Amino acid sequence: MMKVVSAIKRVPEDWKQRFQNRFEDIEFQFCHGIEEAEEPLKQADVFVTYGEDLTPERIQTAENLKWIMVLSAGMDKMPFEKIEEKGILVTNVRGIHAQPMAEYAISMLLQVSRQAKTLIEQEKNHEWSRQPVMTEISGQTMILLGTGAISQEVARLAKAFRMKTIGVSKSGNPKEFFDETYLVDDLSEVIGEVGFIVAALPSTEETRYLLKREHFEKMSDKAIFLNMGRGDLVSSDVILEAVRDGLIAHAVLDVFETEPLPEKHPLWDEERVTVTPHVSGISPQYMGRGLEIFEENLNVWMSGQGEYRNKINLKRGY
Amino acid sequence: MMKVVSAIKRVPEDWKQRFQNRFEDIEFQFCHGIEEAEEPLKQADVFVTYGEDLTPERIQTAENLKWIMVLSAGMDKMPFEKIEEKGILVTNVRGIHAQPMAEYAISMLLQVSRQAKTLIEQEKNHEWSRQPVMTEISGQTMILLGTGAISQEVARLAKAFRMKTIGVSKSGNPKEFFDETYLVDDLSEVIGEVGFIVAALPSTEETRYLLKREHFEKMSDKAIFLNMGRGDLVSSDVILEAVRDGLIAHAVLDVFETEPLPEKHPLWDEERVTVTPHVSGISPQYMGRGLEIFEENLNVWMSGQGEYRNKINLKRGY
Repeated sequence: MMKVVSAIKRVPEDWKQRFQNRFEDIEFQFCHGIEEAEEPLKQADVFVTYGEDLTPERIQTAENLKWIMVLSAGMDKMPFEKIEEKGILVTNVRGIHAQPMAEYAISMLLQVSRQAKTLIEQEKNHEWSRQPVMTEISGQTMILLGTGAISQEVARLAKAFRMKTIGVSKSGNPKEFFDETYLVDDLSEVIGEVGFIVAALPSTEETRYLLKREHFEKMSDKAIFLNMGRGDLVSSDVILEAVRDGLIAHAVLDVFETEPLPEKHPLWDEERVTVTPHVSGISPQYMGRGLEIFEENLNVWMSGQGEYRNKINLKRGY
Repeated sequence: MMKVVSAIKRVPEDWKQRFQNRFEDIEFQFCHGIEEAEEPLKQADVFVTYGEDLTPERIQTAENLKWIMVLSAGMDKMPFEKIEEKGILVTNVRGIHAQPMAEYAISMLLQVSRQAKTLIEQEKNHEWSRQPVMTEISGQTMILLGTGAISQEVARLAKAFRMKTIGVSKSGNPKEFFDETYLVDDLSEVIGEVGFIVAALPSTEETRYLLKREHFEKMSDKAIFLNMGRGDLVSSDVILEAVRDGLIAHAVLDVFETEPLPEKHPLWDEERVTVTPHVSGISPQYMGRGLEIFEENLNVWMSGQGEYRNKINLKRGY
């Protein structure tokens, strides 16, 4: 009998039931973390994991292992060499962060543009004042660094708010929901006169410290910069100086060079910076959406028909 | 020579120039309020106003007056009887509140759902905690009381967030961006199991205290109720008791039975109520959008061709 072992903690009971009912020819073993999964893994055909608990040794001793389902998008810690050597299929849940992250971006741009902090302060003080100027996000121009699934979902919502959307990517190729797309090399030329700059880039050699003081100098002094990709896209010092020098109006930061952001870091208190604790991708629906992709792929696995969703190219690692 | 008199304060210089340049056959006189406009009004063919400064006497003495352009949507203070008697055309800017109000609604639902107050508090305390549970607004169901221009714009944005939208109106007729529409009489039957209840109703005999305790009892205890229409849709006591009894999760209120909301009113401090000072319709673009409608209508007026936008039926008063 085919055996699926999961190291995912707190899989809801109804999901466990659902798998058991829908796949009667499979034995499911839901473990609470890798310690519990360590032994069962040795007999597993399929392993469900967040991808941070796999070592070459574990792969080696899991003699029947044919498929690793990673319930995450980041796979920095996967021992791909060993996995490839054993010819194991890897799939992940790439794309499921797009919806919460797009919500995060729109919600934070609204929060800053509509002066939510001031209104909340007024509420605390029982102060009825209609003075705070609430600019609309509708009709503005947004530039997105990266045109992947997350940026695309942000751009889709931005279009609903009647914004003009500009995408910047390695290829510069046109993509749905972007009015214009450019090459990263042309960033300096298109970054001016834009209301919102939204970054959802992964950390790669090409994106590390891609944004520099010179880019902020070209931005509009009314611009809001939002980073929810990786903290090493731009140094904190560059951001701090950019807002202090009035190069931009506000920075919304969900990711940092060091996380958690140290308690004494100056970003916390800077009035024109909003700090959130890397929450953009968090969603109560996360596990459900991930397990849905697993179920989809399990159907492909069992029937031998259809295509796996998010099959990983082991050489590239994504 | 045709004469246009405006009592609108602070019309931007570039707009004054634009009118002067585009309508060379018209004499424009831009006054700072009704005191300044009082005399010129007597010779005016067209009067531009927010609609709160007109008395039957002023209409009587304005012998040439043929058209009143109201740069507002509310016209409770217009002396319609006298206006009709003199056969004066009235147009207004109905519809221009839709965009800022729809932004307000989405922004407040995001603020509450994504725990913005808690995150802002954490930021103040330099606290890096990812514990606050941010529910998504995406995919929820929204019920809108009223299916007019404002509700429709909210529903349009809600659809972009992949929500199911239900409209409740006097006619119950289907409208774009509403998945389902019902009669007001059926409200009690459809108000349960809904994540968001959004009210943008005007104050009329039919809407006054339309919402009662019994409606809140039918709502989901996870529901967020948002009122940005008129404060007399539901009494503050009913709202206070509804949140205190846990009938709903949160109320977002931009309008109140008494405005400004008195400093000692219990709504200010209620944790599950968010108070904003009647700001949903405020937009820095307001005057520009209003003057655009005026310009459009002025073209109709001068050419005698086309239809007036927002021509008011004097008998109905809207």
